[in-house]
Amino acid sequence: MFDIIYLLEMIGVVAFAISGMIVARSKNMDPVGVFTIGFITALGGGTLRDLMMDNHPLYWIKHQEQPILILCMALVFSYWHRAERIRESRIVFPDAIGLGIFSILGAQLALDLGHSWFIASLLGVMTGTFGGALRDTLCNEVPYIFRKDHIYASISFAGCWLYFVSQWYFHNETVPLTIGLLFIVIVRMAAVRFDIRLQRDHG
Amino acid sequence: MFDIIYLLEMIGVVAFAISGMIVARSKNMDPVGVFTIGFITALGGGTLRDLMMDNHPLYWIKHQEQPILILCMALVFSYWHRAERIRESRIVFPDAIGLGIFSILGAQLALDLGHSWFIASLLGVMTGTFGGALRDTLCNEVPYIFRKDHIYASISFAGCWLYFVSQWYFHNETVPLTIGLLFIVIVRMAAVRFDIRLQRDHG
Amino acid sequence: MFDIIYLLEMIGVVAFAISGMIVARSKNMDPVGVFTIGFITALGGGTLRDLMMDNHPLYWIKHQEQPILILCMALVFSYWHRAERIRESRIVFPDAIGLGIFSILGAQLALDLGHSWFIASLLGVMTGTFGGALRDTLCNEVPYIFRKDHIYASISFAGCWLYFVSQWYFHNETVPLTIGLLFIVIVRMAAVRFDIRLQRDHG
Repeated sequence: MFDIIYLLEMIGVVAFAISGMIVARSKNMDPVGVFTIGFITALGGGTLRDLMMDNHPLYWIKHQEQPILILCMALVFSYWHRAERIRESRIVFPDAIGLGIFSILGAQLALDLGHSWFIASLLGVMTGTFGGALRDTLCNEVPYIFRKDHIYASISFAGCWLYFVSQWYFHNETVPLTIGLLFIVIVRMAAVRFDIRLQRDHG
Repeated sequence: MFDIIYLLEMIGVVAFAISGMIVARSKNMDPVGVFTIGFITALGGGTLRDLMMDNHPLYWIKHQEQPILILCMALVFSYWHRAERIRESRIVFPDAIGLGIFSILGAQLALDLGHSWFIASLLGVMTGTFGGALRDTLCNEVPYIFRKDHIYASISFAGCWLYFVSQWYFHNETVPLTIGLLFIVIVRMAAVRFDIRLQRDHG
Repeated sequence: MFDIIYLLEMIGVVAFAISGMIVARSKNMDPVGVFTIGFITALGGGTLRDLMMDNHPLYWIKHQEQPILILCMALVFSYWHRAERIRESRIVFPDAIGLGIFSILGAQLALDLGHSWFIASLLGVMTGTFGGALRDTLCNEVPYIFRKDHIYASISFAGCWLYFVSQWYFHNETVPLTIGLLFIVIVRMAAVRFDIRLQRDHG
């Protein structure tokens, strides 16, 4: 059977790992640092989610092909991708993909375990944002979630609710998944492109 | 039935959330940042406690009215509380309330689960101090627990032991709770007011 | 019965606690700060390991003599060990001992719980490096794992694999343990002494 959830998870892991490795390379880290940042960015959100919901074994312990894939990616990145100053634009897209996939899948897992929409949306936001927040903290960047320059966590939150409502409306699996995911990715890209924020600075 | 433990937990959550939101506003964060810091400050200690003692579901997942309350507080704070430079004095009181309540309740939960007084006091200190430590770290302040200017964690530790001893002495629930709680809040306020510390600097 | 695993764990806890307390004293922390850093350095890796593998109660909750020992050490250190500028050389040896012991024991626990060699080696590296990484982060040093000046995590990873292979070869408990442990400690000391690194800087 073709398992859409597993495929999405894999895409999310790869996207977040790429975003982490680009940042790690821009800091001129060695291969171990590149792997560590890639691993933490890709699997940090899911690990927090599984710990908080007591969902054992952790998903990367159950699916060891995911850390193996990240290890291979780290080797390729370290010897092939030149260390260079970070270009923000190259991270925004993989980060948005990872944010979208992990937010929706985290929220869905919470629903599966019987939690309410509100709790599920919080757990979705945590799953979607935690890996990226660790990446930015460990690489001495201000995490997106604490930057005021563009909306980030609120897109994930809104995307989860859009997903719940369309699930309730469509009685279907793939349509709501597509709606929630596209919403998060597109709005996030638009927020960066058109400079959308929640609050203007007022000294 | 009037549940004193639940009421105290609620007061502790509100007090810590206020302390977090004051700091977040002083850093001019947007509403999502204010909610995030408030949430982490109020629920971080209890989450660590529940994870370490394998006490599932986490208490904010079980009592979803707590994150909902924090969300409402964050909205009110963001649009009503002017962003201004932090005045230390306004945080010390809510922080002391939260420290007292979570230390005692964390220690009590550990006793309920059959742990020794020593382990319970360590878990009490972690429950009481972790939320505030995350708040200060995320807002680029030095956490109280690592500041030498006033005693902090040692008050929580002493308060837990005072609570255990008075529990053993009084065979009662509310008297030891009151003693432990008042001790922590009053000594903490006095430590800040009268500049009590464990160690003077010696270059 | 003479329990070699328990003895090693105790040595690892003491070694990591010493490394943490030396750093904490060099930052002129008060006794509570010294205890906190010692506790987190010594028990952080094992706590992460137990949480990730859902191995409850946590080992310092089960063996309360370990935090009690750390508390006694913190008191001795605070009043006896003069606060002074850190000399890197004094931390490298206890840190290498702790790294070796916790990497191997973490990996072994993962094998006991039925995980694959690859997952066990990742959990071994996390167990071995997490305490030291927290110590360095909390004391405002760059964690070894993110420094490029000498290899660190890769030694732990290689040591775990050497341990697995010699276990498979020798059908024995103590020989592989000794091989894995000595490998990590000696190679780590040599890496610092002879300046071995994975990657030269290329601006």
